[in-house]
Amino acid sequence: MKMKCTISYDGHLFNGYQVQPGKRTVQAELEKALAILHKSEDKVPVISSGRTDSGVHAAGQVIHFDTPLSIPAERWPYALNALLPGDIAVKTAEHADDGFHARFSAIKKEYRYFVYTEKHPDVFKRHYAYHFSYRLNVQKMREASEHLIGTHDFTSFCSANTEVRDKVRTIYELDWTDTDDGLQMRIVGSGFLYNMVRIIAGTLLDVGTGKFSADDVKGMLDAKDREAAGRTAPGHGLYLWHVYYDN
Amino acid sequence: MKMKCTISYDGHLFNGYQVQPGKRTVQAELEKALAILHKSEDKVPVISSGRTDSGVHAAGQVIHFDTPLSIPAERWPYALNALLPGDIAVKTAEHADDGFHARFSAIKKEYRYFVYTEKHPDVFKRHYAYHFSYRLNVQKMREASEHLIGTHDFTSFCSANTEVRDKVRTIYELDWTDTDDGLQMRIVGSGFLYNMVRIIAGTLLDVGTGKFSADDVKGMLDAKDREAAGRTAPGHGLYLWHVYYDN
Repeated sequence: MKMKCTISYDGHLFNGYQVQPGKRTVQAELEKALAILHKSEDKVPVISSGRTDSGVHAAGQVIHFDTPLSIPAERWPYALNALLPGDIAVKTAEHADDGFHARFSAIKKEYRYFVYTEKHPDVFKRHYAYHFSYRLNVQKMREASEHLIGTHDFTSFCSANTEVRDKVRTIYELDWTDTDDGLQMRIVGSGFLYNMVRIIAGTLLDVGTGKFSADDVKGMLDAKDREAAGRTAPGHGLYLWHVYYDN
Repeated sequence: MKMKCTISYDGHLFNGYQVQPGKRTVQAELEKALAILHKSEDKVPVISSGRTDSGVHAAGQVIHFDTPLSIPAERWPYALNALLPGDIAVKTAEHADDGFHARFSAIKKEYRYFVYTEKHPDVFKRHYAYHFSYRLNVQKMREASEHLIGTHDFTSFCSANTEVRDKVRTIYELDWTDTDDGLQMRIVGSGFLYNMVRIIAGTLLDVGTGKFSADDVKGMLDAKDREAAGRTAPGHGLYLWHVYYDN
């Protein structure tokens, strides 16, 4: 039986999603809980829609795994949440078709980036939003965002430490919402390169302060050079929000 | 010079506000930061509006201290926040009259208690709201709250472990708001006994589930016996929200 689950995690005490020897990771905790549930010495491998970096959160990460257990789908979150640490929670579980794959079946992903601009730090947001206490011109940030929407080579917006060759991706939606609680960037794309969302957020914040113009961002895309774009915004403001599948 | 500051803290890694030998407390961290700022071997004593328990948060705790330093009032938050750990922040600072006392000058205090009732735990709220996944009749909780408003002997709503003799207090406001994010109890009173807000919150939640009726709460007041009232709700849902002074 193949199970598909939506999970959330608070990234701040994890060394990212993916298993790394000797480090606390989300995947390792999931596989540990599943091994207990399966009373198994062997690992129950968990496949996710993709890794997230250290400190990055997930509101709607999707995973799949195979299981011989005949637990009803709606009981899976209770069974796993009882075994998982408090900073990981299973939100939903459902039986999936054999052909389903958390990573390869994904057609779009949505990330959100949270910023707050209050003068003084907010203790309740210190791990959950980026404190950037500069005056921001959100209108300019929206204009710059328009240049990034569509299908482009995002080499300038990708960490230089990557082995991926094809850096063409499609951004379907990219907008900024100004709320009482701060600024929120919402980005939906076909897929994202390493650090791409954080470099986009950092660069657009630099547009907000006036360091770059909206048109500069168009030039950054054309440059195809990581040095051309702005800063990588810190991981703790970033949330993997939703993974879209066909069904 | 007497300084009055509004501070906030995330209570989850503190053993409460008040100094205790060998434990991490808010007061100890404040006094440590002030000693560094004053380049002083001696403690700079900090007086608060009152202690808060382990795990309890503050959005608007008020403190005062005396200082020979001539730092402009608006610079104090920057100076202290640079020295404080990330889970304490000074929000505002002002010069206070010699007669001001963070505790004795306070005329009213406001606490808020946050509850969320989703089926599964929310990783982002695990230290910041009480997960109580029962169906709640908020109308009944509001009716019961009405019985508590006014001047009463709150013996039944006070931890038995207290040395305070006079247990008469006045509650000016007590209401429940139902938001997208969960339930919020707001309580404003002349002062609160040990665990009083948490026992009120726990008892009113028990009214919400139907364990007690709204009228039962009136009987609890009359009983003047801690055993008569309901549970003490956990500390991590509680926030010292605002301290009111005359000026």
